[in-house]
Amino acid sequence: MSKKIFVGGLAMGGGSRVSVQTMTTVKTEYVSAVMAEINSAVSLGADIVRLAVRDERDAAALRELVALSPCPLVADIHFDYHLAIKSVESGVHKVRLNPGNIGGERAIKAVSDCLKANGTPVRVGSNSGSIEKEFLEKYGRSAEALAESALYSASLLERFGVQNIVLSAKASDVATTVRAYELLSERCDYPLHVGVTEAGGGKMGLLKGAIGIGSLLLKGIGDTVRVSLTGGVEQEVIAARDILRATGVDKNFAEVVSCPTCGRCDYDAAALAEKIAKATENVQKPIKIAVMGCVVNGVGEGKDADVGIAGGKDKCVIFVGGEAVRTVSPSVAEEELMKEVRAWLAKN
Amino acid sequence: MSKKIFVGGLAMGGGSRVSVQTMTTVKTEYVSAVMAEINSAVSLGADIVRLAVRDERDAAALRELVALSPCPLVADIHFDYHLAIKSVESGVHKVRLNPGNIGGERAIKAVSDCLKANGTPVRVGSNSGSIEKEFLEKYGRSAEALAESALYSASLLERFGVQNIVLSAKASDVATTVRAYELLSERCDYPLHVGVTEAGGGKMGLLKGAIGIGSLLLKGIGDTVRVSLTGGVEQEVIAARDILRATGVDKNFAEVVSCPTCGRCDYDAAALAEKIAKATENVQKPIKIAVMGCVVNGVGEGKDADVGIAGGKDKCVIFVGGEAVRTVSPSVAEEELMKEVRAWLAKN
Repeated sequence: MSKKIFVGGLAMGGGSRVSVQTMTTVKTEYVSAVMAEINSAVSLGADIVRLAVRDERDAAALRELVALSPCPLVADIHFDYHLAIKSVESGVHKVRLNPGNIGGERAIKAVSDCLKANGTPVRVGSNSGSIEKEFLEKYGRSAEALAESALYSASLLERFGVQNIVLSAKASDVATTVRAYELLSERCDYPLHVGVTEAGGGKMGLLKGAIGIGSLLLKGIGDTVRVSLTGGVEQEVIAARDILRATGVDKNFAEVVSCPTCGRCDYDAAALAEKIAKATENVQKPIKIAVMGCVVNGVGEGKDADVGIAGGKDKCVIFVGGEAVRTVSPSVAEEELMKEVRAWLAKN
Repeated sequence: MSKKIFVGGLAMGGGSRVSVQTMTTVKTEYVSAVMAEINSAVSLGADIVRLAVRDERDAAALRELVALSPCPLVADIHFDYHLAIKSVESGVHKVRLNPGNIGGERAIKAVSDCLKANGTPVRVGSNSGSIEKEFLEKYGRSAEALAESALYSASLLERFGVQNIVLSAKASDVATTVRAYELLSERCDYPLHVGVTEAGGGKMGLLKGAIGIGSLLLKGIGDTVRVSLTGGVEQEVIAARDILRATGVDKNFAEVVSCPTCGRCDYDAAALAEKIAKATENVQKPIKIAVMGCVVNGVGEGKDADVGIAGGKDKCVIFVGGEAVRTVSPSVAEEELMKEVRAWLAKN
């Protein structure tokens, strides 16, 4: 198991709840616009938000942002170690940097001392686009190179006594990403920030993120997740929450299982399933609701669910806690099923 | 590795290309409507289509459907073994049934003899909704129960000499599904039909299917896939193809990698990435195109891609085969990048 660290008040690693991250897309110096993105992300379920700190103006905005933000903030810094120090001194809750590109030994020591003095954690790690030449030469553009590059980045800070480290090793292809994190989880006990980098936009970006992050979560790897999607904080946070739900890592929601419907289906189970999903989308308790088109798998799934329905041409059977409770006409199926769902939620 | 069987002319297992399946949603007796779904599925990339055979009229339609279909067809049968025999005699290319519910020993023997005489393969397997009582009692509703139930189903046919078997073991939750298939791949060499059952509709159904199937494909498990989605053959086929692409199992397409954009991005990389994805959606050759917002990961990813662009406020650098070839204005980035993409495709 990974060790536990704290990012502001949020525990990360060591069996803590897997947290959701995203990154703002506007310039950090524009406090109001940044806060709008942060608030929107948090309202959708983000636990941590990262911001790019490119210059003095961005760094100067951090103190105000830290005061205003409802969640811990991470400063993303490249090249200029002064910005890292400024960010930490502004009270930012975590820093993301690459110790290999901030200006050599003295810069690394200065940043390390500042991190330690403020108790601020740091994320380091590798991206397939920025692996050091020596690792590329030794291992090719591979999972091994990504993992070794990430561990090397950590070692640059470890030498100066930094311990609160989070690691990442992201490739733009799913298989390499998954393998790199497997290697990291074998070789260190730092909390792991998991994600697929540069996954792209739309459907393919979502699928690459979901399969990569999801595969790792199913193996128990990953302490904090970010779904990188071209185009939007909201999309990223919703996708991350959906991945946590789809993998069963987050169970506090209404799970609607429904059959894909086939030539056996005598009523519109798909439409009913969609209505039930919509009607229960804000439920924050674990409940499993089955909407089944026929009896082939319907009865079994219906019985396995907390509340279920298995349809037929003229009548549907409603199940509660594995027992058939009554038969209703398909025309009132939604109403009758939701009645049982509400009753179940009230009781449990 | 799984053993290889043939479904019509399509090889399945033994390292063959992973095939995509779906299932029609209209009554099988309505030949024109079924053919419309089959043709649509095949045009989108389906390799095999399954149909529910509920009665004599459905079974009677199979001969015509087999003659008309551009792809192998699978008859899905429950309870009535006569329908299985009729389907096989109609020339259907595979049968999906549950030997445990077709009427006992004599029925199983009759179906087995018919399958062998016609050289027709069969899929058997378990669903979390239909696990035999004995396995539920012994193992609970678990991956172990699913896997043992599937192997038991196969054994009922093996006793009568049936060898061309495809296995499945689907749960409606992702973790159980993945574990069940891992067990099957350890315990037998039958080709595996992988999918998550009753995954539901919309986004959650897609994510559950993607993470479950994707995790297995990354481990080299899975010979044919079906993404079960409430509501639509087309959706299922597109999702399956996207999963094969996202996992790298299918490489014959234009992969657009792009960064999620952050406060560092000085031009609209998201919009450019989307345009490039759209412009290359019908490419059937492997090409990796990187659209990057800035230089932090941009240069590395740009160099790793076959063709890439890394942006800036006033100019973007275009990379081909890892070399910067020229600098262009963001206003003509799409045109200039596509010029290089077309040139690369013409050459490779």
